Amino acid sequence: MSPAACDPDRVLRELAELADMTSDERGAQRLTWTEPWRRARRWLRAELDSLPVEVHEDAACNLWATLPGRSSRALVIGSHLDSVPNGGPLDGCLGVIAGLEVLRRLSAQGMPAVTARLVDWAEEEGDQSAHSLLGSTAAAGHLDTSLLRSSTSWDGRPVSELLASEGVEIDRMGEAHAELTTAAAYLELHIEQSVRLERAGLPLGVVTGTAGVERQRITFRGRRDTAARPMDDRSDALMAAARFLVDLRALADSRGGSSLAGQLEIEPNVPLVVPDTCRVLFDVRAFAPAAFADLKRGWRALADEVAADERVTFSAAPQWHIEAAGFHPELIGRAERIVAGLAGDALRLGSPQLHDAGEVALAGVPTVMLFVQSTGGVSHSPAESSPPRHLRLAVRALDRLADEAIDWIASSSGAGGSQAAPAQAER
Amino acid sequence: MSPAACDPDRVLRELAELADMTSDERGAQRLTWTEPWRRARRWLRAELDSLPVEVHEDAACNLWATLPGRSSRALVIGSHLDSVPNGGPLDGCLGVIAGLEVLRRLSAQGMPAVTARLVDWAEEEGDQSAHSLLGSTAAAGHLDTSLLRSSTSWDGRPVSELLASEGVEIDRMGEAHAELTTAAAYLELHIEQSVRLERAGLPLGVVTGTAGVERQRITFRGRRDTAARPMDDRSDALMAAARFLVDLRALADSRGGSSLAGQLEIEPNVPLVVPDTCRVLFDVRAFAPAAFADLKRGWRALADEVAADERVTFSAAPQWHIEAAGFHPELIGRAERIVAGLAGDALRLGSPQLHDAGEVALAGVPTVMLFVQSTGGVSHSPAESSPPRHLRLAVRALDRLADEAIDWIASSSGAGGSQAAPAQAER
Repeated sequence: MSPAACDPDRVLRELAELADMTSDERGAQRLTWTEPWRRARRWLRAELDSLPVEVHEDAACNLWATLPGRSSRALVIGSHLDSVPNGGPLDGCLGVIAGLEVLRRLSAQGMPAVTARLVDWAEEEGDQSAHSLLGSTAAAGHLDTSLLRSSTSWDGRPVSELLASEGVEIDRMGEAHAELTTAAAYLELHIEQSVRLERAGLPLGVVTGTAGVERQRITFRGRRDTAARPMDDRSDALMAAARFLVDLRALADSRGGSSLAGQLEIEPNVPLVVPDTCRVLFDVRAFAPAAFADLKRGWRALADEVAADERVTFSAAPQWHIEAAGFHPELIGRAERIVAGLAGDALRLGSPQLHDAGEVALAGVPTVMLFVQSTGGVSHSPAESSPPRHLRLAVRALDRLADEAIDWIASSSGAGGSQAAPAQAER
Repeated sequence: MSPAACDPDRVLRELAELADMTSDERGAQRLTWTEPWRRARRWLRAELDSLPVEVHEDAACNLWATLPGRSSRALVIGSHLDSVPNGGPLDGCLGVIAGLEVLRRLSAQGMPAVTARLVDWAEEEGDQSAHSLLGSTAAAGHLDTSLLRSSTSWDGRPVSELLASEGVEIDRMGEAHAELTTAAAYLELHIEQSVRLERAGLPLGVVTGTAGVERQRITFRGRRDTAARPMDDRSDALMAAARFLVDLRALADSRGGSSLAGQLEIEPNVPLVVPDTCRVLFDVRAFAPAAFADLKRGWRALADEVAADERVTFSAAPQWHIEAAGFHPELIGRAERIVAGLAGDALRLGSPQLHDAGEVALAGVPTVMLFVQSTGGVSHSPAESSPPRHLRLAVRALDRLADEAIDWIASSSGAGGSQAAPAQAER
């Protein structure tokens, strides 16, 4: 389709270069607004400097590079450079660097039929702000500024102070929404972070949507007591939380969804004292809207039941929420044909993990994602990896998909801004 | 029986005086080897100075006051001045100050028929050494010095360093056993720390024994993962611990015992990461030897089962262990008659809570304890209390029981050192 070619090996070299620049012996340390993240951004800007693209940051810290096309309607390719603490060499940055390579290839071919843009979303991981997908949420027009203003980071600092110290004005973050006005299609490449592609023996998959996620901080409150208190007269906050977590998993499983609790604290946390307080940060996720609705109602009913049984009370503070996002059937179909052509077969799969693509899709931009196989499903860890041959295939697939998407946008005047019908995700 | 009288009101005044000297706004702070505890000990020694008693500390830091009698065979009255952090005004010190009052009364009557001794056990609470009943365990000859030498305090310091800095030589602690050579009966008064007397509307109870307790630090180890990992492929250490705690409680309940987990930590303790490590300090307790044996075997079988189900491993480090201790039938019977005479009725009850009396009984000294009603069962808290009229009655009961025990020792040449048949505890 295009005489100029992208260079997957350069993507692999640049991934290694970025990892060298921004990791220590415990892994990648590109937390948003830290020096390693700034270093990564400087590196990206330096690469973009040699291309005929306009580069700027929006009010939510997202970095945009724009290659003007014959139409202002735009294909957007995005991902994120930020990582979790002790993160891996692929999560996020693979998509940015592969997108950069596509932009290089498009630039080399002269002005494309439609505008092509690369976005490096800010604070996708949410480790600094306790707000996953922060930059893309702002761009999607979905930012709850009052929640953000009142929230604290996972280590207890007020997020508003952190953002202010980084020069981010919460009230202006919504201005990032203007960036999506011309967006007519959005593509994102990411490692799978799970084992479905590996189990299926396939290098690549086409993502049909992202799960709906409800995240809450629940606090059970009981009564401090010694071991002398008969068990049937205790109000043991830890026991209530333990039952809640076990039952929540069963509920999520029964709806084809999942639950996860990764942070838990008890007070007073003394060996022989019945805990009077147990705080748990959990989330529940599901693809199907009805299943997700069941989980959003269900966790509270479970907590009510457990609290009554265990003679404790509970309160819950919503932390974050995103609806299930279905990707665009036309883009899913085109991606599937490209992947099957390159890899012999394509697996359709839903993403239980959050991605900026979910926010973009929920904003009405036709969206699709590609997943590349993740060795052992390991992610958010320095052990995160993917076979180099799969990574090369992934870059080629993204490159071809970009051309397909440009053709589709150019040929279809109604594609931009239309709300896609949610596709049913497959697992 | 005796013309001289003890003064329960003085006991109440001295309890208030001690609380004033050794508490802050969060409660009693008499942790062993801290300045408030030393202040309490100095106060006690000053009071003993005015009595015709010999006073010394043994190699395990227990303080002994001896009023010589016509026989060297001894009645021992004991309890402990040390408290938990933010403790109450009664746990431990009630028994010491009531015992002091009995010693005063006996002293005022001239030489008793048998020797009478007061002991203030060191480190009953175990908050400094992670070893409950430390002083009485040494005196009973049950100290596991290798366990003690390798153990760490609950905040992670090596116990051996702490003891060394306090001048306690682990290898010499067993010398405290000599103190019990002449012991022919042991009495201890304590608040109940539970609600059974309050529910029964009774001020006093007679304790038939203390529970067997097994305390373990169990560590579940799984695999760190993101939420993208399918639930049936996760190795979630927190989920394993949650199931273990729920199932452990059911097991303990089915055997008429109890379980408690008051300390739990997970790693990495990050909201969206499957915890790879969960450490829980738990104990299981039961009165009946068969039930206790079931729990000692049962928790490990449960952990095996949960670990297999949840695809995690576990290891367990024994923290502490005491067998169920039955008190002496003759002393229980005499205590019961005294309590019924003073309060109209007496409740026999087992103690799920640990007491130095358990160690003394396991060392073969005929033992009995009195419990006084505990308002709301609250203990290990500054809110710990007991109605003053009940406390006065408790001091009178201990005083009379001391006379009964002296008579019994004097009349029964075989009582000293005999191993009592364990009495069946009632709940």
